[in-house]
This record gives sequence, structure tokens and C-alpha cells, in this order.
Amino acid sequence: MNLQLLRQHRQELHHHLTHQLLPFWVSRSADRVNGGFITHFDQHGHDTGTDEKSLISQTRSIYTYASAHRAGYGGPELAELARHGVDYLIDRMWDEQYGGFYWMTNRQGKVLNDQKIAYGQSFAIYCLSEYTLATGDPRGLNYAQRVFDLLQIHAVDTHYGGYFEMFSRDWTLKGPGPGGGDRKTLDVHMHLMEAFTTLYEASQHPLHRRKLLEVIDLLSQRVMHPVYGTGLPQFWADWRVAPQIKFDVIWGWDRFAEGGIKPTADDNTSYGHNGEFGWLLLHALNVLQLPYDTYRAAFEKALSHALNYGVDWEYGGVFVEGSHSGTVYDREKEFWQQAELLIGFLDAYQITGNHDYWRAYETVHRFVLDKMVNPDVGEWWPLMTREGQPIWTHMGHSWKINYHTVRAVIQSIARLDRLLAQFT
Amino acid sequence: MNLQLLRQHRQELHHHLTHQLLPFWVSRSADRVNGGFITHFDQHGHDTGTDEKSLISQTRSIYTYASAHRAGYGGPELAELARHGVDYLIDRMWDEQYGGFYWMTNRQGKVLNDQKIAYGQSFAIYCLSEYTLATGDPRGLNYAQRVFDLLQIHAVDTHYGGYFEMFSRDWTLKGPGPGGGDRKTLDVHMHLMEAFTTLYEASQHPLHRRKLLEVIDLLSQRVMHPVYGTGLPQFWADWRVAPQIKFDVIWGWDRFAEGGIKPTADDNTSYGHNGEFGWLLLHALNVLQLPYDTYRAAFEKALSHALNYGVDWEYGGVFVEGSHSGTVYDREKEFWQQAELLIGFLDAYQITGNHDYWRAYETVHRFVLDKMVNPDVGEWWPLMTREGQPIWTHMGHSWKINYHTVRAVIQSIARLDRLLAQFT
Repeated sequence: MNLQLLRQHRQELHHHLTHQLLPFWVSRSADRVNGGFITHFDQHGHDTGTDEKSLISQTRSIYTYASAHRAGYGGPELAELARHGVDYLIDRMWDEQYGGFYWMTNRQGKVLNDQKIAYGQSFAIYCLSEYTLATGDPRGLNYAQRVFDLLQIHAVDTHYGGYFEMFSRDWTLKGPGPGGGDRKTLDVHMHLMEAFTTLYEASQHPLHRRKLLEVIDLLSQRVMHPVYGTGLPQFWADWRVAPQIKFDVIWGWDRFAEGGIKPTADDNTSYGHNGEFGWLLLHALNVLQLPYDTYRAAFEKALSHALNYGVDWEYGGVFVEGSHSGTVYDREKEFWQQAELLIGFLDAYQITGNHDYWRAYETVHRFVLDKMVNPDVGEWWPLMTREGQPIWTHMGHSWKINYHTVRAVIQSIARLDRLLAQFT
Repeated sequence: MNLQLLRQHRQELHHHLTHQLLPFWVSRSADRVNGGFITHFDQHGHDTGTDEKSLISQTRSIYTYASAHRAGYGGPELAELARHGVDYLIDRMWDEQYGGFYWMTNRQGKVLNDQKIAYGQSFAIYCLSEYTLATGDPRGLNYAQRVFDLLQIHAVDTHYGGYFEMFSRDWTLKGPGPGGGDRKTLDVHMHLMEAFTTLYEASQHPLHRRKLLEVIDLLSQRVMHPVYGTGLPQFWADWRVAPQIKFDVIWGWDRFAEGGIKPTADDNTSYGHNGEFGWLLLHALNVLQLPYDTYRAAFEKALSHALNYGVDWEYGGVFVEGSHSGTVYDREKEFWQQAELLIGFLDAYQITGNHDYWRAYETVHRFVLDKMVNPDVGEWWPLMTREGQPIWTHMGHSWKINYHTVRAVIQSIARLDRLLAQFT
């Protein structure tokens, strides 16, 4: 690694962000008729017409525009886009009767799924806090705090700790099994850490600080594997490990066998989640102004597992998932794992000084820019073969929007800038 | 035990309640100048003038008058007294800025201690729910629900489960040690079970049902001794047993050695708490309409320990506390332990059919009516020697009011009536 190489990577990302990613979304996302965002686009960037506005696609879009604005990109146009999204979120997706945001509307704003899903509420807290930080509009933090309070009241398991995740509209806990009411997941608790970090950054409230620390300790002591430090996807209420099943309400296309159970349900970890956990943990500690000491091992275990087993040194990029001890199960390349490990590997390189992390970063960086970016439109393919041929081809959907891609590029540029600063 | 004996006990209690206990309080408690209740009375029933209105004395008074009214005693006068107390509680003790009830005012309603103590909030939920059940006034349940929500938001430990207990006015968790911010106690969790039971009885809300079940499971799985089934008084946040220390904010006169540590801090259990836990658990299951099966062992262990070690068969009544394995440490007789074991032993007799529980009940009943009732005024001495000589002599204080005594008599009469019904 040298100055020129750093500059080249930084330049490639900056060009990708400002000439491809942001223009793709800014030019076609706002629904000026109904409010909110259109998020369903095919490989050519054409609106597929799917009549859905999902809570996660709306909140992630708001996060994208607000955070890009705060990071200095796009000027007032991005702030206006974020505000446009917040208007829809509050006016059409907020449940005045029971509180919280609905899971799904159609494009006109009619509620299609009124359930309260902690994953979606978590993204509401995240994007609304980021929105207030970016624009100063107090509505964001106000609603973020209301959702935070609702989660404390309804979602927390006061017996075993942690959060239940699946609720009916009136916040009644859903039933067991596919209903999901008897489970707790890495996914939701990691995103609550992410959300509470930005909530605390915006509010500086001691309660938000305390609950952030509690979820960090839950993650590092309960959710990550006691030996390998890798993420365990699902738990029973009492934190015994549960086999990984498919829920009725989903926010991605995890592949399950017949009957909704992973063939590797009892020994499965996601390289992308582990890297995301690691860098979100460091980010939380930065916002909390705490030293890394207590959590350094948790970070390094999660990232070294991804380094040792998740990187495809032959074709580039990172694999989907594998066993805790190292066997890779799924060698395809999904977009969000690449995104999270761009950031994770850069953080690991900066913390450890281990050059292997830089090499891993380069491997993912090259795979993304050379293969994963759809050159016609500038967004990323959702899923590719190991070698880099598109399998799925949509650019946007209710479960795929710009949050992973734009955030990864903005956050990677910031980290490369810090590395560059060390050269001067 | 025979019909005549049952009738005699029932008659004694009814006379004590209607001719001594209730008249004592009804005739002198209402503060018609400042609102709320005066609760400081010496052995002659004279107002001592102590310029305090504590949250627990006000809420427990409300509970007493509301519950006695609901049980059919006293007519509209008791409902009016309860309303008089609720007016003061809401007008003078509610914190409009941060929510929750202050810990202490003076008689005029000036706040003397603005801290938020979970023990006191728990009694607010309890008495306000009982008040709505007794009178139909929706203000009670409304404020009870607000306090419940505040506890969920601020007090719950989302990492290890359970509730933190000691907070500043703005609900910031207090510091460790005597501040109490690093501990969890049997006392508070048992009273939360009590409070949530009546809250659920009043609201029939599934959330209140779920959180009640969670605190029941916490108590039976974490708080009660894994072998003996007896109550462990104090814990660290992670539920490791902590030595029993004295906190800065207290609500009783537990006796501690120099330095605020119990000489038996590591092996200490209260017969009164164990009996109270047992009957409150059965009452909760009744309100939840659940069978006793799952929790029968928890109930029987707690009560059989009190039967085997806590009863003073020589002088009557029950001792204060002792070791989990059986050694009695403190053979004095405190008022509230007698009260709770009157109810507990009757429940145990009814559930198990074991006649020893009836004998234990008789022993406590006789000690109370023959020695503990101050014959001049009809309330109970707060603390007596083993033999039955008064040590402390006040009839009321910020920490002693009519909740234990009146409740024990009302609840015992109801149980004796059920036993009598089996004879007909």
C-alpha cells in the first residue's frame, strides 16, 4: 500500500459516488405525486411498477440522503430529498392510534401491512436521528425518540433481556415459529446498536447512552459466538441458540430449504453481518467517546473470521456465509456483504495495522468496482455468481435500496482520507 | 380446626378491622387543609407533627381505602378518602416535567426529595389501579399506565433483564453502592409483581399481562434461592448475588451493622418477604387465570421455609429473618411479617391441606390480636421483643401505614370465608 494506491482507491470511490450512485437515485427516486420514494427498478433503471412502499426502503432512503448531505455531498438537493421522505414517513406510515410505523403501504399511501416489526422501527430511529443531525429539523429526533420509547415499552423482554422483534399493529407480541414472537436475532440487535448510536449522537441523552451500552454488551456477550466471536443468527427468548428459520415477515432473500429451515441452521454465520457488527461497534464507541479496550477482542474476532474464511482471493469479493469454524457454505456474492466489509476491513486495517486487511479491502474494492457495479446505470447487482455474473438483476426493491451501497462508499472515502492524512 | 374455631377467628378479625383498624385511620388520617394524608402518629394516636408526606405512605393509604371499599367495607366514606388521596398524589407529587412521582413532600406539598424510586412508583401503580377498580374513576388507571410506561422506558435493564431501582428526578440511573444504581432487589421485583397484577386486573391489557409473567419468571427463576426457594435480598445487575447493603434512600428500618452491611449479608432471607412472595404469586396466577402447576414448587418452598424456621411456636408470631438453610438470626417480631404470613399461611393451608399451616396461622393470629395490637388505639406496634413487649411504639410514620395491617385482615377474612364455605 502506498500513497498513490490510496489516492487511486479514494478517487475511484468518489467518482462512483458522485457520478453513478447518487445520480442514479436522485434522478428517479422521489415520488412527486404521492410523496415518499419509488424504490423498484430493473437492471436498466426502469420503474418496475411494483405497488409497494416498504418501511425499510423509505427509511433507508431517508438515511442515504440525510447522511450524504451531512457528509458534504449533493448540497441542498439531498436535504430536500430527505425532508420529502420524512414527510411521507410521518404523514402516511405513522400509526396515530398505537404509535410506531407500519411495515408496508402501497404507492398511494394505503396501508398494506400494519404490523410493527422491530427491524423497521430500528431503521426509523436511525434515519430520523440522522435527518435531524443533517438538517436541524427537530421532527426527526422527536419521532425517533417516540419510536425508541415504544420499543422500550413493548419490545423489551424484561425477563431475559434483549428485544422481541415481531408485533401486531397494536404491539401485541406475535406467535412462535414463523410468527417470530419467540425468537431474538443478531440482525435486529445489531441494527438497534446502529440506531441507538445515531440517536445518542443526536440527543446526547443519558438514557439513550445507557440503552446503547446495554445492547452493545448483549451483542458482545450473548449474540456473538463464545469461542469464535462470529455472529449467531437466531436465539430463543432465553438466549439459547435457535436453528435459523424463515419468518413470515422478511426483509431480504435469505435462501432456505423446503420448510423454511437453513440446511446449515445450527452452524451458520454471515461474513457480512460480522463485518458490519465490527465497524458499527467501533463507530458506537467513537460516538460514546469510549476506548476500544473492552471490546477489541470482539471486533478482531469478527473481522479476522471474515478475513480468514470470507474473502475470495481468487475471484475477489466476499462470500455469503459459512460455519463458525471456517467452512464456506455459500460462495455467491451478495451486494450488501461487499458493502459492509469495505468499511469493516478498512477499520480493521486501521486498528490492527495488519496489512492482510488492506489486501482484503482491495480485493473487495476491485470486485465491487470491476464486477458488481452495473455499468449501464451505476448501481450494484444484488446477487452474482462467485465469478461475478449477475444472478438477480434488479437495482432496487422493497429490500434493496441505496443504504448499503451509498453508506459503504461514503464511509470508505472517510477512512481512506484518514489514512491519506497519515501520509502528510 | 373446626367450624367454631374458623368462625371465631373470622369474627375476631372482622371486629378488629371494623372497630379498631379502619376507625383509627378514618378518624385522623385525612389532611383537610393541605390534601393527602397525615401518617405520623405516636402510640397514643397523636399526630407527631413530622413534616413529611412520603410517596409510599400516600400510595399505601390510597390502596388501603380503595381496597377496603372494593371489599365492601366502609361505604362511600372510604371511596371519598381514596379520591382525596389521589387528588393530592396527582396534584402535588406528580412530576409534570419528567414524569413519575416524587419520593417525598412536606405536608404543604413542597417537594423535599425529588428522586424517582422504583419501589415508590410500584406502589403508585398498585394503588391507582386498585382505585380505578374500586371507584371507576379513570384517572387511577391512566396514571398507573403512565408510570408503567416510564418504568419500561427508564428502569428496565435491557441487557440482563429486570429493573434498576434508583433514579434521579430526570430518571438518570443513580451511582453504585449506597446510591443503589448497580443493584436489583427482591423487594422491588416482588412489589412490581404485586403492582402489575392489579394493573392487569384493571386494564386487561395484553402488554401488562406479558410483563407480569416476565417478572413472575424473574422472581421464581432468579430471585428465589435455587436450592431453598427462599428470597435472596440483593443482586448485582447481572443477577449474581450481592451482599445486602443499606441504600441512601430507604423505606424501612432494616438493621445494618456499622458501614451499612448486614452481619449476615451473604446468607439472609426474610420470612415475611417469602410469605408475601408466595401469596402474591398465587394471587397473580388467579388474576391471570393460570393454573398453579408451574409455580407450585416456588410457592411451597417459600412457605414451608417460613413454617419450618420462621414460626415462634413458644411465644407466637414469626421471626424477622434467618439463613436460607434454617438458622434464625433475628427473633424479634416486626409488624409487617406477621401481616404477610397471616395471608401466606392461610393460602398454604388451602393449597396443601397440611394442617401445620393452619397451626402456624393460628399462632400468628393469636400473637397479633393478643400482643401486637396496641389496645389503646387498635393499630399494631411496629416492633416487639420476641416475647411481645413493644420496642418501637409509633403507630404511623413515613414507612409504616395501614397497608400491611388492613390488607392482611381483609385478605384473611376472605380466605376464612372460603374455608367456611367448604363446611356448608
